[in-house]
Amino acid sequence: MSSEPSETKATRVTSFDVAERAGVNQSTVSRALAGSPQVTPATRERVLAVARELGYTVDQRASGLRTGRTDTVAVVILQGPEDKAPSGNPFYFELLGSICEAASARGLETLVSLQSEDGRLSGDYVKRGQADGTIVIGSARHSSAWTYFQQLQRSTGNLAFWGSPFDDARWVRSDNHGGGRIATSHLLDRGYRKIAFVGPLGTGPGQFAERFAGYREALAERGAQPIEASIYPDGDRKSQGYHAARDMIERDGSIDAFFAASDRLAFGVLDYLKEIGRDVPEDVGIVGFDGMSAGTISSPPLTTVAPDLAKAAEALLRMAIDGETSVTQRVNVKLIERASVRPA
Amino acid sequence: MSSEPSETKATRVTSFDVAERAGVNQSTVSRALAGSPQVTPATRERVLAVARELGYTVDQRASGLRTGRTDTVAVVILQGPEDKAPSGNPFYFELLGSICEAASARGLETLVSLQSEDGRLSGDYVKRGQADGTIVIGSARHSSAWTYFQQLQRSTGNLAFWGSPFDDARWVRSDNHGGGRIATSHLLDRGYRKIAFVGPLGTGPGQFAERFAGYREALAERGAQPIEASIYPDGDRKSQGYHAARDMIERDGSIDAFFAASDRLAFGVLDYLKEIGRDVPEDVGIVGFDGMSAGTISSPPLTTVAPDLAKAAEALLRMAIDGETSVTQRVNVKLIERASVRPA
Repeated sequence: MSSEPSETKATRVTSFDVAERAGVNQSTVSRALAGSPQVTPATRERVLAVARELGYTVDQRASGLRTGRTDTVAVVILQGPEDKAPSGNPFYFELLGSICEAASARGLETLVSLQSEDGRLSGDYVKRGQADGTIVIGSARHSSAWTYFQQLQRSTGNLAFWGSPFDDARWVRSDNHGGGRIATSHLLDRGYRKIAFVGPLGTGPGQFAERFAGYREALAERGAQPIEASIYPDGDRKSQGYHAARDMIERDGSIDAFFAASDRLAFGVLDYLKEIGRDVPEDVGIVGFDGMSAGTISSPPLTTVAPDLAKAAEALLRMAIDGETSVTQRVNVKLIERASVRPA
Repeated sequence: MSSEPSETKATRVTSFDVAERAGVNQSTVSRALAGSPQVTPATRERVLAVARELGYTVDQRASGLRTGRTDTVAVVILQGPEDKAPSGNPFYFELLGSICEAASARGLETLVSLQSEDGRLSGDYVKRGQADGTIVIGSARHSSAWTYFQQLQRSTGNLAFWGSPFDDARWVRSDNHGGGRIATSHLLDRGYRKIAFVGPLGTGPGQFAERFAGYREALAERGAQPIEASIYPDGDRKSQGYHAARDMIERDGSIDAFFAASDRLAFGVLDYLKEIGRDVPEDVGIVGFDGMSAGTISSPPLTTVAPDLAKAAEALLRMAIDGETSVTQRVNVKLIERASVRPA
C-alpha cells in the first residue's frame, strides 16, 4: 500500500512542529510570525519557509486570545417580518455590501447576523471575542430591539448604529434633512407646484421625519404648503407608496409631484400613476430616496437622493472598530438624476 | 469620589471568578455551561445564576479551541470589477441573504469575505478556526479564482461552491437545463415563434451554457431553431443584454421573443425594445432567469425562472457544514409569471 500524504486526513501542524523543524524555540516561531523585531530577518525567513513547507496555518482563535484582535467586524441586520430574503429590504444588503468592501480594504472580515425583534437579540460580539466592533443596521420600526442595543451601547464601546430611532446614541445617518431639501427644491425648480410627501412618519426622530422636515422647509421658503397622505396600511413599502399616492390623488387630482421618503415607496407611487394613466415625468414628477440600484430598472428610471454608502461604511467602521468618540455622524447625500423628473 | 461600577471600564470576568463565587471548581463551571450531564441540575442552576450576576460571557475563541466548533459558516463572494457594491451583482446578495437566514435557523452566524481574482484569495477559514465550513459564490468568469478553490476543495472537506465553472467539484447549482426548457416552452405555449437566446456562453459547462442547452432542446422538440447573438461587448450584464437584442433584431426583425439567461440581461433587452417602440408582451415576449426582486419593478414586470434560494442555501450548508458527501446538488426552479409574456 502506497502512502499518499496529500490524500490522508491532515493532522493539524502546530507551532511546535515548525519550531522543531526550524531548530528554534516555539516562542521564536510565534514572534517570527507576528513580525516581532526581536527576531532576526534570517530566522524569520527560515521560520516562514518551514511554516509554508509544513502547511502551518495560524489558528485565529488562539492567535486572537494572544493578541486580543479578531480582525472582524460584526454586522447585525434587524429584520421585521416584511424584510425576509429574497424580497426583503435590498437597501440593507446594498449597505452591507459597502460595509464588506470597506472592511475588506482595512483587512477585516465581516460577521453577519440576521436578527428579529421577536427572536433572540445579541450584540455581544466583542465581549465574546468574535469581533473588534459591531454595527447594527435596521429600520426605526424595530423599537424594542433598538432599546436593547441602546442599553448595550451605554455599557460598551465599539457599537455603531444605522437606522436607530433615537438621537441619544452613537449613530451614522444620511443627511436626511438636506436630502429632503434637495429633492423638493429640484421638483420646484423643474416647474412642479403641488408636491406631496409620501412616507409614514410615526413618532420620534426617525429618518423619514428628518426627510419630511427638509421637504417642509424647502416648500415654506417658496410659500408652498406640505401635503401628506392620511393612510398607510400595513404591508411592504411599495404597497404603502401605492396606497398613499391613491389616497392623495383621490383627495386632490391637481397634485403634480411626489417626494417619496424611500425608493421602494416611490416604486409604489409609480405603479399607481401608471394604473391611472398619468405620464411620468410630463404630468407628474417623482423623486425617491436611497439611490437603490433597482431604480435604474423602473419605468421611467427613478430620480433619487442617494447617501454616499462608501462614506457611510467608513464612518460606521471608524465608530465600531476604532471606537471614535463622536456621538453622531452625518453622511452626505446627492441627487441622482434619472428620468422621473422633467428635464430643465 | 463615588464609584460607579457600570461606568468603569469592565475587567473581563473569567470562569474562575464564577467558580469562586459559586463555590465550585472552574472545571465544574465549564461543564455546567456546556450542559454536561456530569453536573447536577442544582449545581448547573447555581452556576448559571452566578454567571448572569457577574455578567460572565463565554469567550468564543477559548470555547472554540476546546470544542473545535465555531458555529459559523464562512461565505466567500468572488467579485469581478463589474460586481462592486452598491450597483454590483444583487443576485449574490439575494443568495447571501438566504444563506444568512438558513444559517441563522441552524444557530450559525455567517462570516462574509469579498474577494477578487486579482486580490489575495483565501478559503482556509476552517483550518484557521474561524468557521465550520465555507461556501464560495461567484460567476464562472473568475476562472483562475475557481481553480484555486477547486484545488483547496481537493485537499479539504467542508467547502461548497455556487457558480463554479467546472463539473469536477462539490457544488450546488440551479436546475439550469430544466429552467431553460421551462422558459422556452412557456414562450412557445403563448404563441411566440422566433425565440432568441441572450447570454454569452464562453467555454466549458457554465450555468448559461446549461440554460442554453435546455432552450435548444425545447425548441428542437417543436422543430424550431436556436437564434444567438454574435456580439457581447465588455460591460455589465444589462448593457450586454441591450447590445445582444439590438444585434439580433437588426439581423432579423421578425424575432418575437427572448429568453435571457439572467434577469440583468433581460433588463437590457427591455431597454432596447422600449427604445425601438416594441410592445412587451404584445409584440415581443421576454423571460429572464434568477427571480430577482428588481424584476417586480421593471416595466412590464419581468416573467422569470427562479431557483429556490432557500433550498439552495440549505444544500450549500449541508455540504459545507455537515460535510455531506454527494458531489453535486441541483436546486429546483420555477416559473414566476409576471407581465413580460402574453397571458394564455
